[in-house]
Amino acid sequence: MTIEQYFQQVGQQARQAARHMARASRGDKDRALAEIATSLKQQRASILAANAEDMAAGKSSGLEASLLDRLELTPARFDAMIEGLEQVMALADPVGEISDLKYRPSGIQVGHMRVPLGVIGIIYESRPNVTIDAAALCLKSGNAAILRGGSEAIRSNRAIAVCVSEGLIAAGLPGTAVQVIDTTDRAAVGEMISHPEYVDVIVPRGGKSLIERISREARVPVIKHLDGNCHVYIDDQADIDKAMAIAINAKTQRYGTCNTMETLLVAEAIAAQVLPQLAEVYLAKGVELRGCAASRALVPAMNEATEQDWAEEYLAPILAVKIVANMDAAMDHIARYSSAHTESIVTENWTRARRFLAEVDSSSVMVNASTRFADGFEYGLGAEIGISTDKIHARGPVGLEGLTSQKWIVLGDGHVRG
Amino acid sequence: MTIEQYFQQVGQQARQAARHMARASRGDKDRALAEIATSLKQQRASILAANAEDMAAGKSSGLEASLLDRLELTPARFDAMIEGLEQVMALADPVGEISDLKYRPSGIQVGHMRVPLGVIGIIYESRPNVTIDAAALCLKSGNAAILRGGSEAIRSNRAIAVCVSEGLIAAGLPGTAVQVIDTTDRAAVGEMISHPEYVDVIVPRGGKSLIERISREARVPVIKHLDGNCHVYIDDQADIDKAMAIAINAKTQRYGTCNTMETLLVAEAIAAQVLPQLAEVYLAKGVELRGCAASRALVPAMNEATEQDWAEEYLAPILAVKIVANMDAAMDHIARYSSAHTESIVTENWTRARRFLAEVDSSSVMVNASTRFADGFEYGLGAEIGISTDKIHARGPVGLEGLTSQKWIVLGDGHVRG
Repeated sequence: MTIEQYFQQVGQQARQAARHMARASRGDKDRALAEIATSLKQQRASILAANAEDMAAGKSSGLEASLLDRLELTPARFDAMIEGLEQVMALADPVGEISDLKYRPSGIQVGHMRVPLGVIGIIYESRPNVTIDAAALCLKSGNAAILRGGSEAIRSNRAIAVCVSEGLIAAGLPGTAVQVIDTTDRAAVGEMISHPEYVDVIVPRGGKSLIERISREARVPVIKHLDGNCHVYIDDQADIDKAMAIAINAKTQRYGTCNTMETLLVAEAIAAQVLPQLAEVYLAKGVELRGCAASRALVPAMNEATEQDWAEEYLAPILAVKIVANMDAAMDHIARYSSAHTESIVTENWTRARRFLAEVDSSSVMVNASTRFADGFEYGLGAEIGISTDKIHARGPVGLEGLTSQKWIVLGDGHVRG
Repeated sequence: MTIEQYFQQVGQQARQAARHMARASRGDKDRALAEIATSLKQQRASILAANAEDMAAGKSSGLEASLLDRLELTPARFDAMIEGLEQVMALADPVGEISDLKYRPSGIQVGHMRVPLGVIGIIYESRPNVTIDAAALCLKSGNAAILRGGSEAIRSNRAIAVCVSEGLIAAGLPGTAVQVIDTTDRAAVGEMISHPEYVDVIVPRGGKSLIERISREARVPVIKHLDGNCHVYIDDQADIDKAMAIAINAKTQRYGTCNTMETLLVAEAIAAQVLPQLAEVYLAKGVELRGCAASRALVPAMNEATEQDWAEEYLAPILAVKIVANMDAAMDHIARYSSAHTESIVTENWTRARRFLAEVDSSSVMVNASTRFADGFEYGLGAEIGISTDKIHARGPVGLEGLTSQKWIVLGDGHVRG
């Protein structure tokens, strides 16, 4: 069987399963999630054995330490997979929600009904726990899923796929509602992204180059997240204590996350008051500072920032710092360099807060809060399939609702158009 | 200047104007619409003269009669353009609407704010009145627009573009917020659809082949509408009078619209009661009927339907007719052949109505109403940029809201993540 034939089979099965999933009740879907959890517990030993084989193969082929770390199913990660399933069970079912039902002058009643997207394709790295996360979210939102994890995790993913399929069948749902691509051939990705007749949307999760390639080549809509180049702007009417707390938290609470601040913008009129004491904390925590000339005049320990620094997502203890004339200059800088992920202003000024909220065109815009809050769990979505920096469909953290859309419904009593 | 250089200039101007438009107040935007209307009235003679030149050129180059008809700016169409502007002025401004603002356990308040998409590219046929419609909707929704009408209308569109630009400037908005592509070079379309840095979404309006080509080649998200292969299913528990009224209205109220019924499905148990009298009305109205074997046994005047008929969007007085065993068979037929535009069931049965609404995966799903209602005006959108048969972002009639999306906003008081 060629890879084209294999994917055609997978695609047809997914399309068929999707119709079944779209009409599954919340009860059925939650039962499937519970059955998958049971199956995972029963198969724990064999899944961990498969993962050990993946790890051994990864080590012998010289896989990087950071990739080996993500590949490993530690006991804690295994427990977290099961906990994740229970969390998704507890979430409300978005499917079938009817809203805005209104009578029109013609007498018909018109409104929206929330419905699954159909078949979701997810392309991700060699992180076997993502297989369960992604399966659970697609299943609960009434979609069928085609999952393509990194090839280093193929044995782990195969073992997990068996549990998912068993759980679906035990709950009376099609075992093909979640399919894990069972080949390490890279051509499978090419197939997944080029068949709108089988796949309704692609969610790539992974490195920037993978996501860029998929966006460029996909013939299927993509919900994507490229970088998180997030900004905090400290306005000259900021409360200094709040500014300190937010700027430190946004950078240092975690360095490697996409909602971490990468550039700090400070209003000229308040810079001398806030920047030296902030720099002291950053430097004590081992954060390298890269500043504009004006910043370096206030904090000589800063390195010099280059043009490249304003566009950089460091994901590391490095921070770019720039002194700006005022909020307009800050918003100009953000419009030019931001990746449209998350930006925050620290100010006590009502008018500026309202303008910043309205005018900054990012997926999350904040007033007096740390950028680290930009997260599906913090926003109350219960779970997150990713963070979209696209403009259409879903922006920011994407939860169950982002895997659905709304169709129109019309209720009549024999109504015809005049 | 090459076409690439020309488009780069247009794109940069649009991107810049979009930031300005995003923060324009409703007052400013409505003032611009009013000024455009004033300018159109003043320039009426010169616009009609330009249109007469387009018509003369079209005739001498042998343009089809139907295309000449669309190209012509009759006095009635000119008045309708001005009326359209007034209607869009009366619509509520969707931009800035804040919804779902809720406190989270962390203390932050999280919600959504509705924002423009940015720059909308619209590619359409040689219909100069669409230039004003599209400009008005993009402007009111706070977007910048790049409009590319058919080359036969270039003189009319140029003359209209002057009014739009004058109106924007008179209201203090950037004259480049709406730009009409001022070249008939087809390469301009290629440029529009391949620069996500300048264009956020493309809306193609026109023939199926154009839309297919754009969807295939676009590197920018597309809000598209391919066919309307719409179905009415008459259930065996239908009220006969309602079934007659709906089936006749859905087919014969207008033949050339995308929400016209193209296939009628009738439950076996009611076919003998309803189909002969329906056929009589259709035939009297000059509708050609193409039926399955069972239908033809009841109505010998029917022609024979081929496999191709089930997939056809006739846009003409032709109707495919099929007798099906029951609602499940009807839904299977719809899942296989429908273009996911609009489907309607006629039934008095509560459970079947609920199932049909939930399970049919089309952009509009109706109970006891004519498919002809699937329309932005009938749904209360006030205006319509098109009807989307896509699944993500906007489905069905797309009005002002479909040209916006929602970002997240977070309000805090110095909140940091623990």
